[in-house]
Parts: sequence; C-alpha cells; structure tokens
Amino acid sequence: GVLPLCSRPPVWGRAVRQPPSLLLAPCRAFSNNKILVELDESSGVATMKFKSPPVNSLSLDFLTEFCISLEKLENDRACRGVIFTSAVPRIFSSGLDITEMCGKSTEHYAEFWRAVQEMWLRLYGSNMVTVAAVNGSSPAGGCLIALSCDYRIMVENPKFNIGLNEAQLGIVAPFWFKDTFVNVVGHRVAERSLQLGSLLPAPEAHKVGLVDELVPEEKLQEKAAAVTAQWLALPDHARQLTKSMMRKAVLDRLVAHREEDIQNFISFISKESIQKSLRMYMEMLKKKK
Amino acid sequence: GVLPLCSRPPVWGRAVRQPPSLLLAPCRAFSNNKILVELDESSGVATMKFKSPPVNSLSLDFLTEFCISLEKLENDRACRGVIFTSAVPRIFSSGLDITEMCGKSTEHYAEFWRAVQEMWLRLYGSNMVTVAAVNGSSPAGGCLIALSCDYRIMVENPKFNIGLNEAQLGIVAPFWFKDTFVNVVGHRVAERSLQLGSLLPAPEAHKVGLVDELVPEEKLQEKAAAVTAQWLALPDHARQLTKSMMRKAVLDRLVAHREEDIQNFISFISKESIQKSLRMYMEMLKKKK
Amino acid sequence: GVLPLCSRPPVWGRAVRQPPSLLLAPCRAFSNNKILVELDESSGVATMKFKSPPVNSLSLDFLTEFCISLEKLENDRACRGVIFTSAVPRIFSSGLDITEMCGKSTEHYAEFWRAVQEMWLRLYGSNMVTVAAVNGSSPAGGCLIALSCDYRIMVENPKFNIGLNEAQLGIVAPFWFKDTFVNVVGHRVAERSLQLGSLLPAPEAHKVGLVDELVPEEKLQEKAAAVTAQWLALPDHARQLTKSMMRKAVLDRLVAHREEDIQNFISFISKESIQKSLRMYMEMLKKKK
Repeated sequence: GVLPLCSRPPVWGRAVRQPPSLLLAPCRAFSNNKILVELDESSGVATMKFKSPPVNSLSLDFLTEFCISLEKLENDRACRGVIFTSAVPRIFSSGLDITEMCGKSTEHYAEFWRAVQEMWLRLYGSNMVTVAAVNGSSPAGGCLIALSCDYRIMVENPKFNIGLNEAQLGIVAPFWFKDTFVNVVGHRVAERSLQLGSLLPAPEAHKVGLVDELVPEEKLQEKAAAVTAQWLALPDHARQLTKSMMRKAVLDRLVAHREEDIQNFISFISKESIQKSLRMYMEMLKKKK
Repeated sequence: GVLPLCSRPPVWGRAVRQPPSLLLAPCRAFSNNKILVELDESSGVATMKFKSPPVNSLSLDFLTEFCISLEKLENDRACRGVIFTSAVPRIFSSGLDITEMCGKSTEHYAEFWRAVQEMWLRLYGSNMVTVAAVNGSSPAGGCLIALSCDYRIMVENPKFNIGLNEAQLGIVAPFWFKDTFVNVVGHRVAERSLQLGSLLPAPEAHKVGLVDELVPEEKLQEKAAAVTAQWLALPDHARQLTKSMMRKAVLDRLVAHREEDIQNFISFISKESIQKSLRMYMEMLKKKK
Repeated sequence: GVLPLCSRPPVWGRAVRQPPSLLLAPCRAFSNNKILVELDESSGVATMKFKSPPVNSLSLDFLTEFCISLEKLENDRACRGVIFTSAVPRIFSSGLDITEMCGKSTEHYAEFWRAVQEMWLRLYGSNMVTVAAVNGSSPAGGCLIALSCDYRIMVENPKFNIGLNEAQLGIVAPFWFKDTFVNVVGHRVAERSLQLGSLLPAPEAHKVGLVDELVPEEKLQEKAAAVTAQWLALPDHARQLTKSMMRKAVLDRLVAHREEDIQNFISFISKESIQKSLRMYMEMLKKKK
C-alpha cells in the first residue's frame, strides 16, 4: 500500500506534536549549488527554492540535487510537507536542459533520462504533502514538477505561462508526463494541449484546472503555507495511503517500463532530425537574449 | 453483458404498459426495522426511506435489510426505479456504523465488510434506475450510496454536507469507493477530496459534480419522481446494457478481489492505532450530543 | 508508436514548404456519389463534404466512399488536414443507416459492421489534423464522426442537436463509441448521456464539452480553416506521435476485439425484438416526412 521508493515509515498523527529527537534551532537550512532548502520545524514544512539562473533548467546536476534534497526531507521525521518555488524572477523552471540532450553520448542520454525519471518517481510518489508555488513561467519539465505536486498555486500574472509544450519543439512528452497530465486535467484537455504544445497564461491554466488557485505575487508564500497546513491537518498515515491509492497505477507503469522508456528516449533523441531541431531551437533562444 | 448479481430478466419496453399479473392495490409497502419501502405501481417507482435514528448509520442489520429490500425490488417486475431518501431529519446517512468496527472479533469484521461490499455491488450494479434524494448530510458510506445511484439530487441547504471523509477519521476509503468516486467527479477532484477527507456543503458538492442538482427541501420528492420518470422513458433493455457497459470494469474489480479486500479491511481495522483512533472519534461524538 | 492502419510516413515540418512533386493546380477535387472532396494545396487542407440527401445516413456505400477518400488523403503528401462538413442543409449526418440493419442477411450485417469499424479506426487513428465543422444535427453515428476528430466546431443554432442517442432507439452504443465519448466528455457525462440517449442542442453540447466551440453558420468554414491552420503550425511528426499516444489504448481495444464485436452486433441486431423496434422507428420516420 505505501508509495514506492520511499523508505520512510508512515507517521501517525501530526509530527509537530512529537518531541524533537535532537535539540535543533526552529529553522534548519541546507543548500547546494542549485537548490536552497529551508525547513521550518515548528510547522514541519520545508521550502525548496530553485536558484539556478538564468532559467532553472533541469540539468543533470539540478536533477541530482533535487532528488538528494527530496530524499533528505523524506527521511526527516521533522518534515511533513514541501513547498516548491523559484528564487529566479519570472521563471519557475524552464524544464529539461536542452544542452543535456544535444550532441552527447548515448551513455550521457541514458544517465540524464534516468535522472528525469527518478525526479518524477520521487516527487509524484512522495509521502509528504507537496505544494507548487509557481512564481513564473513553467514550460515542459517545469510544468511536470507542478503537475506532480498535490496542489498548484500560481501567481495570477498573465505573462506567466505553464504547459507541456514539447510538441512545439518537435519532441513528444513521454507517456508518464501524459499520464500525470491526464490525472490533473482529464483526457480531453490533455489531448488537445499536448498536440498543440499549449503554453497557457496563468488565468487560462486556472480555467482548465492545470493550476488550482491564482494569487497576487505578494500573497504566494502565505497562501502556500496556509494550503500546506490544511493538508497537514489530516493524519499522515491515512493521507499517505490515500495518495498512494490514487497515484500507484501511474507510478507502477513507469517502474515496469523504465529501461524501455530510456531506450526510447535515446533512439528518439539520437535522430539527426531531432538533433537538428533542438540545435535550431537553442540558436533561437540565444538570439532572443 | 448484463449486470452481475442481478437475476432479474431485462424488461423490454415500459413495464407500466404491461398488465399487472395480480390484482394489486396501486401502492404496496413493506417495512422492516430500519428501512421503509413504498412501491407506486402506477409509475413503477419504489421509494426506500432510511429510518434508523439517530443518524441512519450503516450497521450490519441496516445493510442486511438494505440488500434484501433491494433484491425484492430487483425481482419485482412492477418495479423499475428506486428513490433513496431519509426519514430522519437533517441526515441522509452517517455512513458505516463505527461500533461494528470497534472491539469486535475477526469473524464479525469479515461479516460486516462482506455486507458493505454486497450493498455496493447490488446498488452500483442495479438494473433499476436509482436516484438519490439526499435530504441531509451524507458523509463516508452515506456518500457512497449517493455516488452509486444513477443521479443525485440534494437539498440546497448549505448546512448539509456530503463527501468521502474517511481520511479525517484516520482511515482510508477502499479502492472501490475511490473508483466509484472517480467515475463521478474525475481523478483530480477525487484525489484532492479523498486526501483532505473533504465534506462539502451542498452548493460546493454541486459545483464539483458530486451531486447533479440542488432543490429546495419541499421540492425534493417531486423532483426525484420527475427525474426517475425521465430515465424510465427509455427502453429498459438498452438502458440496462448501457449502464452495465459503463460500470462493469469497476464492479468486476471488486468481484475479482473481494476476499483480498476483506482481509485488508480486517488487518487494517485490527491495528491498535486504528482502534484507538476510532474509540477517540466515538468519544468525541458522544460528547457532542 | 505511429498510428495503426496508416501506411503514410510521418512528415517532418510543414508540407506546404515542400516543392510539389507535380505541377498541379492549387486546388484539386474528387467526388464520388456521396462525398465531395476538395484539397487546397496551398494550405494542405482538404474538405470532405457529405452530400447524400436526405440526411447523410451512413450506408455501406457511404462508409466505403468515406474510407477510400480518407485513405487517398492520408497517402497524399500534399494533404495534412481534413475538415468534415455537410452539403445537406440542417443535417451533418443522421448516423448509421437503419435500412442496412433491418431484414438483411447475417453476411450483410457483418460486412456493414466491419465498414463502420473501419471508418472509426481510420478517422480516430488518422495522422492528419481532423476538424468537424458541424453544420446541422448529428445524432448517433454522426456524432461519432465528430467525436473522432481532433476538434469540433458547431453552428450555434439551438435547433441543431448532437449526441449518442442509441438508447432512445432501444439499441446500445458499442464499447468503442463509448470509449471515444468518455475520452471527450469524461465518465460522468458519458454515463448519463448514453443511458438517457441524450441529443443535446448545440449550446448544451458546448457546455458539457461535446463540442469545443460554437460559431454563427456564416463563420463556420472560416473558423474551421483557422483552427486547422493552428493545429498544422505544429511539426507533424511530434503532433502525430502525441495523438497516437493519447488514442492508442482505445484504438487497440477494438483492433483486439474486432471479430467479437462483429459477432455481438450480428446476434444483437438479429433479435426479433430489436428488428421490430427498428421497423417501428423507420415507420415513425416515414410518417414524419
């Protein structure tokens, strides 16, 4: 019944009521190069801030840090919820780092794709309450991070877009991106949005259910904290088993086809037409700057 | 193709046009201790009224009566539709009777759970048109009864709540409660509501699709009769095969895992932590009175 | 990964940029008895106009022409999108031709049903962008054609109805009609609509998501062209793989059960009660004229 990949034993009742096993300051923080993690021990809620300028792209290094940070929190009994947000203005995350997919070796593609899978398996299957506080644009893999949380709050700025826009780049979102998307917005919206590679402005994203709530930028952190507290008011054990019941089928599907999915990615990304398309896209991005 | 558990042969055309095989009064009624059943032979519609004060909780006795009453109607060619409503003010049904799950033997838990399964299999798989006329609050198992009908009408009183709030009690809704819920409100709303154990006031329940329609209390019976008549205007055979096609996958899933589901329930409910939590919940309910 | 039944190789980039392999007029047309096809080579978009008065019913001849026309376009590299519309006033298509299902031989029923399946497999699995420009009522099989497209635009006239109303005729929509419907409107709306055999006026059809957009009749062609152009702005290869990913499960299900589905149809349609019901329905239609 418990979620896969999570060795943490389920906590019964509210962890905040348990006496801390060590004398600790009310707030602990750890930071690596690309992600800043702050844990508020009084609430049991951590914040993971993406700080990898210019656009928080999901490089192999970023993904590795993300997984290590999440595992640390997952195993920390003082932590029961995580808020994901960006420390970079106007961008939540730009998604998978294209430089990792261009002109590299087969081994590198395999390692990179395994890290992308790992991030999703840990996040979508997390025992903790997970809330995305989306304070900027969030295309492709950035959108996947938001979709994999329990709840999505976005700044109401219509200049901030979100969506799985892979098709616009000539690539195809993998089946587990699609499964996660369908679980949030339903088959109809997913089919249309994925084929069009739609990037929706925040208000439209809210209308189709891609995000749950819009707030002014200055209210984002406060709202994210309030929502997380609401979810944490439930007994952990029951909430975790319920979450697992809802997500297990989709998680199991990737676990069962993981190696096949890596091979598919490698053979797709190694095609000359795809490489050419990605190079053109990167050229375009450079010119934009 | 036909629904499981229903031995009744499909009726072609409108039963009301068939000459009654016996000379019968236009309205027959039978009542046991906890449920009153009235069958209007002119319309072919029965009403099942829950009258088990104080809160129509689903005890083993209630469930047994429910199944027997439903089977009687299912086998009665004069009956083609059933309206479910409450004879107790302000409550439709409070859901599973917690006293049946507290401090009892393993054999009792097995018998109780089998009765809960049986109720759902018969109701969700019924060949008759089933309409819930929800005239009071309807948490947990009470909500399941409503969800298992073809159509849900609720009194528009915002003091009446409905939802699968098991998580609030520290327990987990079984997978077939979840499947039934997802079929009505979709994956996204189900995932959030089940994790939060949300009890929604009638207007919010209507907004997310958990109920189909709101009416003033004094219009409830009239509306329920009108809706049932609308559904009965269709040829029984086509309607029944269509209903079976929509619900078969979810019904088959419990049939295939019925004994396993009973064992899961027993091992979960026998845990000391769960027993303690349920005792605390019952104490709280007693103090409320 | 590619769609079944389509031998056409995926096109990378926009076909309109490719030099035409032959010197051709900017617009080619071919017409058989029941369907007029016009291909605008400058846009890469074909229009298939149903011209089989009085009601564009899906006879064996119509279905055969439909499949041949669609296959021609599928294999024509100058064609990347198709708009489906009617040349008959006030009706898009009345659905399956009942005369093909009444008083015919078992062999005829088998041939007819195989043609219905073939039409759906080719249309739902098409590599091209498919847009339904619904300029009239569209019950049953007519609705299926619209549901199988990528996008549905309907004239906002509330006198035009659309829906899978099979249950009203005493027959049952096959499982793949149902699967296609669920993919568009979700389980809840599909369950209710199929059981009631609902035919929804255009505005209500839009409200439940059965059609994507309403327009005044005089704007229909223009809007359909604009929408098709929007979908064609995406790289074909990525769009096609994405479409296949979304639809494959449902397509594969019919492919796997095709012969069984034909046998089911034959044994259902051969029943005297069904034959009687269809004859009564045809009588009623004749009197209406």
